[in-house]
Amino acid sequence: MAYIDLKNNLPGIIGLMKYRPETAKPLNELAEILLRGPSTLSSAEREMIASYVSHQNECHFCHSSHGAAAAHHLDGNLDLLDDIKKNFRNTEISPKLRMLLNIAKKVQILGNKVSEKDIEEAKAKGATDREIHDTVLIAAAFCMYNRYVDGLGTWAPEEKDAYNETGKMLAKEGYLDSI
Amino acid sequence: MAYIDLKNNLPGIIGLMKYRPETAKPLNELAEILLRGPSTLSSAEREMIASYVSHQNECHFCHSSHGAAAAHHLDGNLDLLDDIKKNFRNTEISPKLRMLLNIAKKVQILGNKVSEKDIEEAKAKGATDREIHDTVLIAAAFCMYNRYVDGLGTWAPEEKDAYNETGKMLAKEGYLDSI
Repeated sequence: MAYIDLKNNLPGIIGLMKYRPETAKPLNELAEILLRGPSTLSSAEREMIASYVSHQNECHFCHSSHGAAAAHHLDGNLDLLDDIKKNFRNTEISPKLRMLLNIAKKVQILGNKVSEKDIEEAKAKGATDREIHDTVLIAAAFCMYNRYVDGLGTWAPEEKDAYNETGKMLAKEGYLDSI
Repeated sequence: MAYIDLKNNLPGIIGLMKYRPETAKPLNELAEILLRGPSTLSSAEREMIASYVSHQNECHFCHSSHGAAAAHHLDGNLDLLDDIKKNFRNTEISPKLRMLLNIAKKVQILGNKVSEKDIEEAKAKGATDREIHDTVLIAAAFCMYNRYVDGLGTWAPEEKDAYNETGKMLAKEGYLDSI
């Protein structure tokens, strides 16, 4: 159970959003634009970045649900996500996505850990300014969502299978109607 | 200069928001609700939490501008803010605010560092569920804003005085018209 009385039994961020709909609105709008809005990065790639950062932040609810969303944008298989979380440097993904994950990794530690070299390496693999901007903001935003979910001690289902339906809903219908 | 071409010379998050107004909208709405919306915590207290977390995250632009905003909600003096950043446990503030800053400090490290004991101590000093919720979300949100600002290598004025006008504007007019 969460550290405060949410007046509902919903897991993770869902219970928090139900408790405080005023803040849920911009939080959902931000996720919708970043993960599903117009972009030269696919929604699968953006959900991978979100899930990877959430895993680094040890947020079980977020890395599981966004991992499931990424998988639903692809073939439904979670193996690729597990590989990225284990070691994205050896995962079979595009060199550009690998360099964007490297930037996300630095952002997760602290903003000032991102170096000019990290940015240059991503640009050399074809990343545009806008893709770099959105990668930094996705990684930063999940440093918020993850802390919100765990800092209030919300509960989360343990098993991967429990996130299948949520992942499907996030991939197909998005974030705006999730509360 | 920032790591990407922002097509403007504005400092910190202001240049980023001008570059990407679609994401600026929910980011500003969230700040407005959290820092200036209806609450039993004063705007000064909430800006103190924001400035303290930004200082822990080593974000010069954010801790300076929100410190200046907090000061403008009070008597214009930055000494209290400096004291909080140095060691809030010895600063002359209310016991409740001290316990909320303790929660914010844990959130800044990682969501799962907040313990049931931290929450109980805040409640014992009079913090309500809603105040605890908003403190966690303010701290989490600044873990995002700070990473966004520094992860893209934006520039920021060095001297405290440079933030005086921004602080006044944020305190008096808020966040919605800031882009």
